[in-house]
Amino acid sequence: MCRFVAYQGHPVLLADLLYRPRHSLVAQSSTSEEMSQPFNGDGFGVGWYSPEIDSEPCVVKAAVPAWSSTNAKSLSTKIRSGLVFAHIRGASPGMAVQQTNCHPFSFGPFLFMHNGSVDHFAKLRRKLQQGLSDRAFESIQGTTDSEHAFAVFLDFIGDPEAPRTVADLRTALVATIARLTELARAVDPSACLYLNFAVTDGVQTVASHYSAGTISAASLYYSAGARYVVDGDDGDMLETEATEFGAVMVASESLTRRPEDWKAVPLNHTLTIDSGLRLELNPIEIR
Amino acid sequence: MCRFVAYQGHPVLLADLLYRPRHSLVAQSSTSEEMSQPFNGDGFGVGWYSPEIDSEPCVVKAAVPAWSSTNAKSLSTKIRSGLVFAHIRGASPGMAVQQTNCHPFSFGPFLFMHNGSVDHFAKLRRKLQQGLSDRAFESIQGTTDSEHAFAVFLDFIGDPEAPRTVADLRTALVATIARLTELARAVDPSACLYLNFAVTDGVQTVASHYSAGTISAASLYYSAGARYVVDGDDGDMLETEATEFGAVMVASESLTRRPEDWKAVPLNHTLTIDSGLRLELNPIEIR
Amino acid sequence: MCRFVAYQGHPVLLADLLYRPRHSLVAQSSTSEEMSQPFNGDGFGVGWYSPEIDSEPCVVKAAVPAWSSTNAKSLSTKIRSGLVFAHIRGASPGMAVQQTNCHPFSFGPFLFMHNGSVDHFAKLRRKLQQGLSDRAFESIQGTTDSEHAFAVFLDFIGDPEAPRTVADLRTALVATIARLTELARAVDPSACLYLNFAVTDGVQTVASHYSAGTISAASLYYSAGARYVVDGDDGDMLETEATEFGAVMVASESLTRRPEDWKAVPLNHTLTIDSGLRLELNPIEIR
Amino acid sequence: MCRFVAYQGHPVLLADLLYRPRHSLVAQSSTSEEMSQPFNGDGFGVGWYSPEIDSEPCVVKAAVPAWSSTNAKSLSTKIRSGLVFAHIRGASPGMAVQQTNCHPFSFGPFLFMHNGSVDHFAKLRRKLQQGLSDRAFESIQGTTDSEHAFAVFLDFIGDPEAPRTVADLRTALVATIARLTELARAVDPSACLYLNFAVTDGVQTVASHYSAGTISAASLYYSAGARYVVDGDDGDMLETEATEFGAVMVASESLTRRPEDWKAVPLNHTLTIDSGLRLELNPIEIR
Repeated sequence: MCRFVAYQGHPVLLADLLYRPRHSLVAQSSTSEEMSQPFNGDGFGVGWYSPEIDSEPCVVKAAVPAWSSTNAKSLSTKIRSGLVFAHIRGASPGMAVQQTNCHPFSFGPFLFMHNGSVDHFAKLRRKLQQGLSDRAFESIQGTTDSEHAFAVFLDFIGDPEAPRTVADLRTALVATIARLTELARAVDPSACLYLNFAVTDGVQTVASHYSAGTISAASLYYSAGARYVVDGDDGDMLETEATEFGAVMVASESLTRRPEDWKAVPLNHTLTIDSGLRLELNPIEIR
Repeated sequence: MCRFVAYQGHPVLLADLLYRPRHSLVAQSSTSEEMSQPFNGDGFGVGWYSPEIDSEPCVVKAAVPAWSSTNAKSLSTKIRSGLVFAHIRGASPGMAVQQTNCHPFSFGPFLFMHNGSVDHFAKLRRKLQQGLSDRAFESIQGTTDSEHAFAVFLDFIGDPEAPRTVADLRTALVATIARLTELARAVDPSACLYLNFAVTDGVQTVASHYSAGTISAASLYYSAGARYVVDGDDGDMLETEATEFGAVMVASESLTRRPEDWKAVPLNHTLTIDSGLRLELNPIEIR
Repeated sequence: MCRFVAYQGHPVLLADLLYRPRHSLVAQSSTSEEMSQPFNGDGFGVGWYSPEIDSEPCVVKAAVPAWSSTNAKSLSTKIRSGLVFAHIRGASPGMAVQQTNCHPFSFGPFLFMHNGSVDHFAKLRRKLQQGLSDRAFESIQGTTDSEHAFAVFLDFIGDPEAPRTVADLRTALVATIARLTELARAVDPSACLYLNFAVTDGVQTVASHYSAGTISAASLYYSAGARYVVDGDDGDMLETEATEFGAVMVASESLTRRPEDWKAVPLNHTLTIDSGLRLELNPIEIR
Repeated sequence: MCRFVAYQGHPVLLADLLYRPRHSLVAQSSTSEEMSQPFNGDGFGVGWYSPEIDSEPCVVKAAVPAWSSTNAKSLSTKIRSGLVFAHIRGASPGMAVQQTNCHPFSFGPFLFMHNGSVDHFAKLRRKLQQGLSDRAFESIQGTTDSEHAFAVFLDFIGDPEAPRTVADLRTALVATIARLTELARAVDPSACLYLNFAVTDGVQTVASHYSAGTISAASLYYSAGARYVVDGDDGDMLETEATEFGAVMVASESLTRRPEDWKAVPLNHTLTIDSGLRLELNPIEIR
């Protein structure tokens, strides 16, 4: 019941993801096309990196519908970044609508966001917490399964200051998925989870399209090309012959007009985007 | 782009209007059935009277979606009243999402709410304001056409302390409709307005279903019976042979399961509910 | 860093506690007289009982300064209750300013609020949580030491449906204080806590004035009389010769003009108010 | 009851104005030293320019205390600008606490903020509005005297696209002051106003320190030097022998530790800062 977009590549205006394309993320907040419930009005967040300042992201969130935020609108026309995470929230029933429950979550250089659900989260939450380091436990400010998943990830990734590859990021994300699946199955062997995650350290990005049990995960698409341009009232991904790209997006729904710009991330796969914008799709194997 | 319900009769819990019926007002905030845009997440408000305390209404509003308000939910299970106005807002583009723009608006003993739109409001606003008394002008806290319409009404109704009949309320409301139509047509002879209003002084209520120009007004229904009861997961209006009723509702969409409980207010008519719960439908005649 | 008032007795308007006395709770939100930091602008909450409806309290909270809440102002002039808890928050540094962190906290028939602090809360939080029942653990929505203390209390008080005396309430509150003290001292033998709590089940009330370590607890006062009346711009507690009272207040600061209306709750004592408004002061003995 | 700071010069981090100096603007939101009422918790706003993107400012505002805004804190550590306006609001009694009433106000390339008050504003508001152009009238979103003053200014400054000097900005600001004084005196010849304004077009800045009637205006200071540096827990203005500066601040209270860094703007004077950071103090002469 959430939608997200992650962008990595040449710097773009936030508005080119959030507002200007025909089916921008904010448009999806009121007219999501691939969800049974077509709105996501329980908050939004956007995080981006400014490497010329430092390695930690700037994060702005609010527990109000994205479509009416004048702050988001103003920022989006002025902020340009080469790595952007943006998320709109449709809260699961009973989950508090508050800023600390909005995505993306941040810690040190990391941003993390989630579209999905975890069966029996209330029942497994304490066991999950008991397995966390103090640092990861204390990072939790809200009550969502998503933020708890991020805390698990933080323990798998280890020292935020250490150098890491995109494979390290992927390993920690897959371990997080395995841990959540194990915790949910310990409560109920037929527990359902769907875990569309995106995580970045400001340099490289991993996204997952995963489900366990009889639930089907929501859609996840990516688009890669030489350059992402927004012209008039829509955006386009310019094609390239090269195997390295200038711009990559991963999104719950395609943002732009041309269907051929978007490919599905296969179910139970990760998409990795390394610091040189090279892409890989790899299966998620959980015993 | 808004939905409302007005209730007059034996005291009911707010929850019996806002949450408990199958198609309650809060359910309509995310799944309105008779609007092209099926959500109304730009704020809500509820006003009610406690005649044992005084003659002025209590009003609670917030510029957040009704569906996530824990305050509204808690209040609704404890507050019982015999006259309730409740409203959920889907803001017109460009109108600020802020509490002062939420309905119902109140002044002295009056509550007022609106579902509709006024063409060229930005252009006619100043002329409208110039015609107001100081008292009515100074009552305006927000920026909506709706609140400005209420200010016009306040001047037509006159002294809030004076005794008045439901016919007086109706005369002032029809005069308000005429004035708005005249102001809009002065800007553009083919201006469109649709003005579904509800107004009360705590004792009697008038609602209008009105459109001018080529726009069609949104739906408006009413339901009247011996008693309104909510049982299990839905509400029902109990029938009566009498011509006086024990409970009357006017709503943008029918709240309860049985279609036969609801009748349409004819276009360009008012529905008046007097202090004895006698109903009248009268045509709105604007030259 | 917080201020609160609890009222039990003949029904009063919320405004008679929140707004109308010279030094009302809302006045304290901007001009607290007994705190080094004279404002409490990080949210407020009010809970009250309507025994004619049911045994659970109505609770309204918001993470904004009390002084500017038009909802609180409107409700306060219409709601009359014989048992009211109201609280204004000055958040401890680093604690999120959000509605789920506002007091009073509620569960079943209980309301609970806190003025105080617990050293090393971040460090003891997980151990505290591990000792909780599922029910108490799952009741936690926010991140404050105060809400965690309430969860501990819920386990000590047991079945919310069972009959209980004011002595039972007191025993559970003192056990809560002992548990928190023990948890803090396990981290640091010289840990400081101050725990001014108020708890009620809608029928009877207990408040504590407690500190451990070298910290001094903030002030706590009570006032009891035949009747609490607000007249003009201030309130007065009318005296009585009887040993039973008609109105009792417990407050962080005296709300009304006459100093002789207010007595200090001695340090490390509880004040109990039973269902017949009989008062007792008893020492809190923690090994 | 408001505090503001305007900065023009070499790019600085927002945090160097908002958070890091000993007596930063956000510190003033809870411990203003030169106001009888020491807090300003009714909202905040910050606007800044990014000339590499375009000539219009980015503006972020919220109707909550600045001290608890995690968005403001995050943005302030990443955004660097050479022209910043920041404001914290202590609302006048009766003025709605809402985002549209927060400063700075923006229109085209302009930012405008105010610390002060206008006697009889409710009475003169309509007359003021009647004198406005449609464009200026329609720019008004909120209800403050401050935003209405900005609308008056917009009419005096004329075409936002036209080239202008700092003298043009000053002329329009002084004309605005004269107009407000005239309007207030038409209601009451002994009306009091104090009008500490700051306005910029992104290139040059004017501030006023003005009072009329028996009221004394709040303080207004400026600081100019070779460079503004924040080091450790405070900021310093580095001296220069030159008559051109590298950094200029105008603020309601001095932000930094060294009193010699700050000079008072004399009463009934403007301070102009041209695009080359040359300063002038000129008397405001209103007949």
